[in-house]
Amino acid sequence: MYVIVDLCVVPLGVGVSVSEHVAACQKEIRASGLSHHMHAYGTNIEGPWDEVMAVVKRCHEVVHQMGAPRITTTMKLGTRTDRDQSMAEKVQSVHDKLDT
Amino acid sequence: MYVIVDLCVVPLGVGVSVSEHVAACQKEIRASGLSHHMHAYGTNIEGPWDEVMAVVKRCHEVVHQMGAPRITTTMKLGTRTDRDQSMAEKVQSVHDKLDT
Amino acid sequence: MYVIVDLCVVPLGVGVSVSEHVAACQKEIRASGLSHHMHAYGTNIEGPWDEVMAVVKRCHEVVHQMGAPRITTTMKLGTRTDRDQSMAEKVQSVHDKLDT
Amino acid sequence: MYVIVDLCVVPLGVGVSVSEHVAACQKEIRASGLSHHMHAYGTNIEGPWDEVMAVVKRCHEVVHQMGAPRITTTMKLGTRTDRDQSMAEKVQSVHDKLDT
Repeated sequence: MYVIVDLCVVPLGVGVSVSEHVAACQKEIRASGLSHHMHAYGTNIEGPWDEVMAVVKRCHEVVHQMGAPRITTTMKLGTRTDRDQSMAEKVQSVHDKLDT
Repeated sequence: MYVIVDLCVVPLGVGVSVSEHVAACQKEIRASGLSHHMHAYGTNIEGPWDEVMAVVKRCHEVVHQMGAPRITTTMKLGTRTDRDQSMAEKVQSVHDKLDT
Repeated sequence: MYVIVDLCVVPLGVGVSVSEHVAACQKEIRASGLSHHMHAYGTNIEGPWDEVMAVVKRCHEVVHQMGAPRITTTMKLGTRTDRDQSMAEKVQSVHDKLDT
Repeated sequence: MYVIVDLCVVPLGVGVSVSEHVAACQKEIRASGLSHHMHAYGTNIEGPWDEVMAVVKRCHEVVHQMGAPRITTTMKLGTRTDRDQSMAEKVQSVHDKLDT
């Protein structure tokens, strides 16, 4: 099962700036080799379900290891069995409707 | 790593009523033996990370098997290393502040 | 337009415990008179769109006034035009499928 | 109060493809003149609270007018009082930590 997720990991108890923790998370995502795209409120990741979920778990582990005592993560998960569709194709599909 | 999640599985392409699919998902959650609480916009589940994530995956598998060609799920995941805290304690902690 | 939301307000930069801020938010929700239900990872609220959104805004205002420099909120919003459906009916609809 | 949101509007009861409805929503966002960025699982929008929320409401209205009987939307909302921070600055802040 292939999944496209949107992941937003928020450490609590580390003060108001969270970009260092988010960057550590980004490094885990990069290291996974999975296709991804960071935006202003999360990161899209696509790939096989178990691989993507393994990265999400590593993000929690790494952010706790950095000293964050608490994490609240928000995630969307999209799967489909009717056809393959990449993140790029999802965006393109909307742009096609906008340009006509 | 212990996690409290809030899970909301939404099947697409099955019409406007989704309660049958949500019920199938509920059965998977019950079968897992994990502590859970259903509300009007999702279900809280708590337990060890891998067990909770296994249930989420089974929910997607079962809902696809029922014929839903597409699923979009929303999930929150909370972990903490400073102390144990159950779902009931989270709610109680807020009620304590309200009643004083 | 009637809406059922699930609201989870998370203050950042106030330490690891957030229950005081969540309780302040609860007071705003109660004061609104809107039907609501708190669970372990948020609060369901139902009512007319503008009234519900006004409460969400007041939650942000109040939590900032308490000293939180930053807030990240997660929200689900459900609307439907085919029929009226309360939060209680949503939950009942799933339970009906489970019990048969 | 200035807000950065991530908005994902999902119509139910319109079949498996939702890109036409998402495109209609995009047109409302563009028409608002607010700064925004679409990604594979939603759209970031930034601006004054009331203006952003007005666009979200118009999205629901337009998607219902197109015939969707039911909508489930997921949204994240970020506000801060300690300093101004645009969507571009949020992303840049993480990239700075990654490149060093």
